[in-house]
Amino acid sequence: MTDQLDAKVNDLTVKSEADPPAVEDDDQIVNPWEVVSKSEKGVDYDKLIKRFGSTRIDQALLDRFEKVTGHKPHHMLRRGIFFSQRDVHFILNCYETKKPFFLYTGRGPSSDAMHLGHLIPFLFTKWLQEVFDVPLVIQMTDDEKFLWKDLKVEEALRLTYENAKDIIALGFDVDKTFIFSDMEYIGSCPAFYRNMLKVQKCVTFNQVKGIFGFGDSDCIGKISFPAIQAAPSFSNSFPGIFGEKDTGKIPCLIPCAIDQDPYFRMTRDVAPRLGYPKPALIHSTFFPALQGAQSKMSASDPTSSIFLTDTQKQIKTKINKYAFSGGGTSVEEHREKGGNCEIDVSYQYLTFFLEDDERLEQIRQDYSSGKLLTGEIKKELVTILQKLVAKHQERRKDVTLEVVKSYMTPRPLNEKKDK
Amino acid sequence: MTDQLDAKVNDLTVKSEADPPAVEDDDQIVNPWEVVSKSEKGVDYDKLIKRFGSTRIDQALLDRFEKVTGHKPHHMLRRGIFFSQRDVHFILNCYETKKPFFLYTGRGPSSDAMHLGHLIPFLFTKWLQEVFDVPLVIQMTDDEKFLWKDLKVEEALRLTYENAKDIIALGFDVDKTFIFSDMEYIGSCPAFYRNMLKVQKCVTFNQVKGIFGFGDSDCIGKISFPAIQAAPSFSNSFPGIFGEKDTGKIPCLIPCAIDQDPYFRMTRDVAPRLGYPKPALIHSTFFPALQGAQSKMSASDPTSSIFLTDTQKQIKTKINKYAFSGGGTSVEEHREKGGNCEIDVSYQYLTFFLEDDERLEQIRQDYSSGKLLTGEIKKELVTILQKLVAKHQERRKDVTLEVVKSYMTPRPLNEKKDK
Repeated sequence: MTDQLDAKVNDLTVKSEADPPAVEDDDQIVNPWEVVSKSEKGVDYDKLIKRFGSTRIDQALLDRFEKVTGHKPHHMLRRGIFFSQRDVHFILNCYETKKPFFLYTGRGPSSDAMHLGHLIPFLFTKWLQEVFDVPLVIQMTDDEKFLWKDLKVEEALRLTYENAKDIIALGFDVDKTFIFSDMEYIGSCPAFYRNMLKVQKCVTFNQVKGIFGFGDSDCIGKISFPAIQAAPSFSNSFPGIFGEKDTGKIPCLIPCAIDQDPYFRMTRDVAPRLGYPKPALIHSTFFPALQGAQSKMSASDPTSSIFLTDTQKQIKTKINKYAFSGGGTSVEEHREKGGNCEIDVSYQYLTFFLEDDERLEQIRQDYSSGKLLTGEIKKELVTILQKLVAKHQERRKDVTLEVVKSYMTPRPLNEKKDK
Repeated sequence: MTDQLDAKVNDLTVKSEADPPAVEDDDQIVNPWEVVSKSEKGVDYDKLIKRFGSTRIDQALLDRFEKVTGHKPHHMLRRGIFFSQRDVHFILNCYETKKPFFLYTGRGPSSDAMHLGHLIPFLFTKWLQEVFDVPLVIQMTDDEKFLWKDLKVEEALRLTYENAKDIIALGFDVDKTFIFSDMEYIGSCPAFYRNMLKVQKCVTFNQVKGIFGFGDSDCIGKISFPAIQAAPSFSNSFPGIFGEKDTGKIPCLIPCAIDQDPYFRMTRDVAPRLGYPKPALIHSTFFPALQGAQSKMSASDPTSSIFLTDTQKQIKTKINKYAFSGGGTSVEEHREKGGNCEIDVSYQYLTFFLEDDERLEQIRQDYSSGKLLTGEIKKELVTILQKLVAKHQERRKDVTLEVVKSYMTPRPLNEKKDK
């Protein structure tokens, strides 16, 4: 780490980041455990940006991203699915000046079957990894799920391995990706535990009460958990990857859904006090439930989403039966007034999974004008999702326990491939 | 583990153990971080037993101890220095029926120099280990000290190693003793972290507030720490010692000063819910400061106690200068009225370190009658302590880092020596 980067890191840390209160407004609740909106359009993300104190991703950032990386921004960036950020310019500075940095994302393994919504941060992270060609750490917070859910330790750990298979099936580069279970890794890396402790020493109960809404009757495991999600933001939590001599100064970028931001607001608050750079963030909106955008999908309600384990037939049936339609109540009304893409779940799903901008725009125009019927837009979506899920299931079959273990073994990750 | 022991364990756990409130009375404060008494005789231990809900060690228990083990109780037991207990009869049942159990004690390494008071639980534990011939685990809570004190992680870890040398110098059997640093061991044993989590899931902030007096402005590390001191009570936190197949059903006996009891009241409260036996306890009184019994000694005040690093001359000077005297204000008054052994620190120290009952009784009589002067009782004590400390310093010299590491490596411990 050069002095120059240290200086930048220090510059970054001077900025004071007030903790916005966790108190929810009347119309929406967004925290790591609950996302509820009263509006049929879903969460008001402008409000959220204001409340969380993040920055909207603007055209200037997208332009700079393309200029610096030479890659056209991902369709989820272009379409505002990843819409909010903290310090992404700093990460682009690093990339531009060939300073090391890494990516960090995670998953709380609470059920066997991951759904489409769970894929969003991973699909985007995979793309970022390809663009930046940097190491990626993926935290499986099985300890969190154990603490929050009625799950046994063994079951939470089993779910980590099942979910890891799905994540690996997305095609992460094994030479650049470390997946870890908290329950396993914390018990095999003293450096990680020490960073947990350092964070735990900096954060009071009052603070986690304010940020996460914890109360006096919450268990002490929940109360101290935020430090565990904070720790991977600091590179010296991974001596196996970055070397024993690393002092935690390698910055990281965290792609995640915006409900995870409270963890990282807290992390950014303590980082300067520990002499670490603040993690940068890039936030996504929520993937809507089939029934509409008022809430996040729930893994415990099988009709609320498409699962990666669904059959081709189930996908077709679910979309046709449950996907909330923004179309007219009759063909006649639809032809006359057109459909409302803003609330139509099938259209929304297409914005996530249909990469072709022109085709998507055509669908939007045709559906809005009434030319395209609800049944037709659903058919388009069904075809895309059936293909995506079939391909996923095919790939997942090849992910043996041995393959999982290769991703889950701490080891140096090649930062740059030979070109 | 046989069904019989399981049945006993279950019997044990049926007993309900109400959590006595942490609210201190007006005259004394006793918790893991503070011991203050307004009385010159020191802490009122009867009050403490009542408040904590433990049981006084009575003659019947001492008799049974001698009958079952074939050993005359240690002088600290006979003299009421170890005065309170929970479920020691259960441990004697185990010993009698040749069921396995283990010993667990610990130390918070907050300074380089340990003082005489720190030796008490270790001297007694060493004796228990010799009597019972069972494995012993010694937890060095460097994480606790990091969280509570203005200490860096590295410094807390260094103190663990320094203090471990003192502990080892007392002569613990390397074949039966495992010493571990939390900062190292938690990061090298997933089973330990899982037990931490299990305890953390069972205990609410309200509970630790009640038991330890934590408040909203305490850091989240402190709030969840009690789970870390609880975890070694469960044998499956040590798969390296008791085997990977151990399910945590091997009971343990914890010798400690009574200020540590709140941790283990909490542990005993959660143990049945986790399917583990409740740890048994044997509590000591506090070793008085040189200045008198109103407070525990402080490692940060060099005049308050004798340190294991003190020179022969320092020991003599400190005792002569600071040891609170229960004698008369003049030789004449002393000869006439006699000394008060109850408040005389030199006499109190002799009860800890002079093993010979007859000699101690003679001193008590002579000092009480005025036959023995303060200078004479001090001289007696100085001789004993100089010898003890010199011997300790001699032994400590032989404790190399290699020796420390041999104690600190997780490994199977021989439960019974070949006889």
